[in-house]
Amino acid sequence: MQLSYKKTNFRSTCSISCALEIIGDKWTLLIIRDILFAGSKSFGDFLSSPEKIASNILSDRLEKLVSFGILKKSVNKENRLKFDYELTETGKDLEPIIKAIGEWGHTSINGTRSLESFLEK
Amino acid sequence: MQLSYKKTNFRSTCSISCALEIIGDKWTLLIIRDILFAGSKSFGDFLSSPEKIASNILSDRLEKLVSFGILKKSVNKENRLKFDYELTETGKDLEPIIKAIGEWGHTSINGTRSLESFLEK
Repeated sequence: MQLSYKKTNFRSTCSISCALEIIGDKWTLLIIRDILFAGSKSFGDFLSSPEKIASNILSDRLEKLVSFGILKKSVNKENRLKFDYELTETGKDLEPIIKAIGEWGHTSINGTRSLESFLEK
Repeated sequence: MQLSYKKTNFRSTCSISCALEIIGDKWTLLIIRDILFAGSKSFGDFLSSPEKIASNILSDRLEKLVSFGILKKSVNKENRLKFDYELTETGKDLEPIIKAIGEWGHTSINGTRSLESFLEK
C-alpha cells in the first residue's frame, strides 16, 4: 500500500532519503515500537513510555503519522472523548526497520537491552 | 564491536531508543549510505550528494560519527590537507538498517527509486 503522503518536495528520489524525511527522527519509531510490541494505542499509553516523550512532540508526531497514512485514528469505544491509534498496513511494514535498529543498538551500544528483554520488565 | 560512545544519559536502556539517539535524524544514515553504496569518502563527496546537505550539518554529523566510533577519519594520502572517512565494523553493521529503510520507502512512497536504480543514474 502506498502512503497517502502528498509531500512533493522530497530532497531526492532515493527511497532511503524519502523514508528518512518521514521517519528520520528520535521519536517517530518509538511510537511505532510501542504499538507493535507494547500494545500501546492511546495518547496516555505513549506518554507513559520510559523515554518520556513531551506531549507537544507526541501530538505533532501522531498528527503527522495519521496524515501520512502510517497510523489510523479512531474514537475509543468506551470513552468517546479519547482516541485510539493503530497501524495501517504501511505502518506495520515498518517492523523490519525497527528490529534492525534494535539489533544494531543491542550489539553496538554497551548496556542496552534487547527488545525482548526490555518488554519483559 | 561496541561503540566508543560515552553518552550515559540515554532516555532508556531500550536498544531501539539508544540507537535512535545516535542515528535518528534525517542526515546521518545518508552519509552511511554514500560510503556503503556510492564510494564516498571525502567531505566534498558527501556535499555533492543530490540531497544537498548543508556543510555545517555535514561537519556536525561527521564529527559525531567519528566520536561514536562509527567512522574512522584519516589524512588523505595524496593531499594531506584533506581527510578521508571510512566505516568502522560497527558502522558497516548499519547496512541492514539502511536496506530495510530503502525497501520500506520504495514500497510505500510513490515515485521513489530503489537504491539500485538510484545509484545507476
